[in-house]
Amino acid sequence: METARIEFILQKECGFSKDRTLVVGVSGGPDSLCLLGVLQDLGYPLVAAHFDHRLRPDSDTDARLVAAHAEARGLPFVTDGLDVREMASVQHLSLEEAARVARYRFLFRTARERQAQAVAVAHTADDQVETVLMHLLRGSGLAGLKGMLPCSLLPEFDAAIPLARPLLETWREATVGYCREHGLTPIIDPTNADRTFFRNRLRHELVPNLQTYNPRVKEIVLRMARSLAGDYAFLQQAAGEAFDNGLLERGAGYLVFDRAALLSLPEGLARGVIRLGIAALRPALRDIDFAAVERAWDFVQSPPATRHVDLVDGLDLEQEGDRIILREHAARLPEGAWPQLAPGEEIALAVPGEIRLGNGWRLAAVEAAHPDLDALVKETAAAPYHAWLDAGRVQLPFRVRARRPGDRFAPLGLDGHQVKLSDFFVNAKLPRRARDGWPLVFSGGELAWVPGFRPAESACVRPETRGAIHLVLERE
Amino acid sequence: METARIEFILQKECGFSKDRTLVVGVSGGPDSLCLLGVLQDLGYPLVAAHFDHRLRPDSDTDARLVAAHAEARGLPFVTDGLDVREMASVQHLSLEEAARVARYRFLFRTARERQAQAVAVAHTADDQVETVLMHLLRGSGLAGLKGMLPCSLLPEFDAAIPLARPLLETWREATVGYCREHGLTPIIDPTNADRTFFRNRLRHELVPNLQTYNPRVKEIVLRMARSLAGDYAFLQQAAGEAFDNGLLERGAGYLVFDRAALLSLPEGLARGVIRLGIAALRPALRDIDFAAVERAWDFVQSPPATRHVDLVDGLDLEQEGDRIILREHAARLPEGAWPQLAPGEEIALAVPGEIRLGNGWRLAAVEAAHPDLDALVKETAAAPYHAWLDAGRVQLPFRVRARRPGDRFAPLGLDGHQVKLSDFFVNAKLPRRARDGWPLVFSGGELAWVPGFRPAESACVRPETRGAIHLVLERE
Repeated sequence: METARIEFILQKECGFSKDRTLVVGVSGGPDSLCLLGVLQDLGYPLVAAHFDHRLRPDSDTDARLVAAHAEARGLPFVTDGLDVREMASVQHLSLEEAARVARYRFLFRTARERQAQAVAVAHTADDQVETVLMHLLRGSGLAGLKGMLPCSLLPEFDAAIPLARPLLETWREATVGYCREHGLTPIIDPTNADRTFFRNRLRHELVPNLQTYNPRVKEIVLRMARSLAGDYAFLQQAAGEAFDNGLLERGAGYLVFDRAALLSLPEGLARGVIRLGIAALRPALRDIDFAAVERAWDFVQSPPATRHVDLVDGLDLEQEGDRIILREHAARLPEGAWPQLAPGEEIALAVPGEIRLGNGWRLAAVEAAHPDLDALVKETAAAPYHAWLDAGRVQLPFRVRARRPGDRFAPLGLDGHQVKLSDFFVNAKLPRRARDGWPLVFSGGELAWVPGFRPAESACVRPETRGAIHLVLERE
Repeated sequence: METARIEFILQKECGFSKDRTLVVGVSGGPDSLCLLGVLQDLGYPLVAAHFDHRLRPDSDTDARLVAAHAEARGLPFVTDGLDVREMASVQHLSLEEAARVARYRFLFRTARERQAQAVAVAHTADDQVETVLMHLLRGSGLAGLKGMLPCSLLPEFDAAIPLARPLLETWREATVGYCREHGLTPIIDPTNADRTFFRNRLRHELVPNLQTYNPRVKEIVLRMARSLAGDYAFLQQAAGEAFDNGLLERGAGYLVFDRAALLSLPEGLARGVIRLGIAALRPALRDIDFAAVERAWDFVQSPPATRHVDLVDGLDLEQEGDRIILREHAARLPEGAWPQLAPGEEIALAVPGEIRLGNGWRLAAVEAAHPDLDALVKETAAAPYHAWLDAGRVQLPFRVRARRPGDRFAPLGLDGHQVKLSDFFVNAKLPRRARDGWPLVFSGGELAWVPGFRPAESACVRPETRGAIHLVLERE
């Protein structure tokens, strides 16, 4: 038993004090009995906590055995239980996942009640190797291959109390040896031998098989995980900075990123930003699906024709012009700073005249002298919220309203050819969310100007124009 | 056959032109026949190149078959061969490694002769999966787990011509299908079925076994490698910057880093810097041993008591004060900027007087008025290259020389207790390389001052001192 390594984790990696309580999860197996013993020997104040998953009719025997063990050590003992098979079925979780959630809820609740500095569990180096292999087989990037950390926060259970794994570099065999040497009789969980559990198959079949390729494979995977954890931590830190740089907006259930900022990142970092985004909206998601991150990154890189992709757990990614929006399906995005009209609203605009739109915009019309056409054309391209129309070719007052089904438009430059307004919006890349309330200027039933984009061919100033009307849409 | 994916690698990842030749390594197996066909269909100018490893008595039959195949396609054909079994034995390489080295030497030589833009080889997605698993089993960090790259430089074979792997995302099965559809008869290499080769065991036993845990494991490992390659590239780029920041000096066979700069880095980055350092001194080293990097990082972090650690392939790491030196065992490090005397040199120093030492230093002695002792003590600690000795307690002229075996010293502060000069040097952390030439000031056979460290107790000024001598060692 390398107690020094365990104390290193507790002191250096976790920064624990010997003045404050640790709540120790004790199943009664060799790993947790060993952990309890070593922690007590090292002088940490402990509370032994046992959770009964009620997976076997006689499971309360375990609780009594652990209680007796804690009493013999003079340690406080806490227990609780839940039928996790029922929980799994009601909440559509795997049995292993339900057991984990119920157990951690209990342990962290106990830690809060006891004002403990941390929850300590008895995951061993073997558990670490199995975890890494499981992630490898199920598909995971660095986030999974790095395995478990010696000290980490699980925000879904507690935002401040950490989970410690002091035995993470201690082999299971050493914990069995410790129990033997100290005359402890661990509970042997019969489900550990059940090879229908994925993890048990890894333990009893895959790991021994891999050892035929390299007898040192367990040490190698353990060391690899430690090294990848360093790489991952660095990548996460850099991704955190890139996330802050690329984030334009965040609200309830959504995040808006600058697409160009994401595209400028090295691939590894861009994936890291996506993972952080998903984690920000879904803090309880344990392992972010690797394929979801790949899908998201492919989507960000793909040409803007693709507008939407499903990611994971009710989240999706949308593209809106230069913006990439990560959102819950149901999240209501803000209208932002666009000029918008209420549904059904229709307002007359005289010349000269001025009307107010939603979101702090106003639309004004004034008469203008005979325009210098060349200058105008240049100015129009540079100033999409300005239009110069031919006073002799429009009917006043203008009518300003939002789009209706069937609206058509003959924009300047298409020789009078009409297109569906909906197609025009798509080609113009006007964000979908902005389209329903976008102000349109009509002259006698014909669409004369789509502010921000084009005037109509028929209404536009031309060389023979005698009098012009200058329209301006601007923020108040 | 997903030709689009292959063309994506050639165009986007490699940036190849259809005006310049590709030298294609063709064993005659299904993968390389498929590669040759697809590249020709895509319109790249090709040279078919076959290397005969002479592992079987009839191996020249393969060369004739590939030659006939190339001729039928109207492609130029080049061949060469070597008994790689003999090469392996002479050069102490594994058979696989010898075959690889001989083959790539031939392919890159051919590429240079033909002024080709690249060498293309037929590694498939299956090869990639096997490579990743091999690295996992043998112990590797991100550098190995990322697998092979679609386009990379192998500086040990050519500094400028890249190696392309256009089939890296094409499964072996698809290449077999391609050959069948196009009526091609590939050569079946009987050694591929030989399970004594590690890679063949992976292919025929381990991969099918892993598929019983997850039928999609091959796709998952392939995608994981691609994702880790992105992480790795980012980490390498950041490590490159950290390497430049932390490097103090480089010379033939050695690199000197600032230890504090390395320690300030996140772990993942520090490991990356070490890997880059090893790669800089050993460019031909294919896979940098993971354990060597770990050893190096542990060494950098460990207290200065540890002075030296063996890394890999004749390299080791030394600590010298604040400097970490990565060096070949045989590399001659420069003396740097220390004051040094030639071996055997011994110079008289009168008061007042001045002598010149090596490396642009001089040592001067002048008479000083009765010193203010408190001020002196403070000044001495802050100015180790100054000493004030008691003129009444030294014999002039001083003799200045480097150390000799058996030299002893009674430094100020030890109440006249004598220590071995060699022990004094160790405790004082004087770099080992500086010790042999370090100037020492003797007064009548007794060591009176070790410049940079301490005067002798017996020679030092004291309250009753009437006349003092001020010694200064300084750069010219």
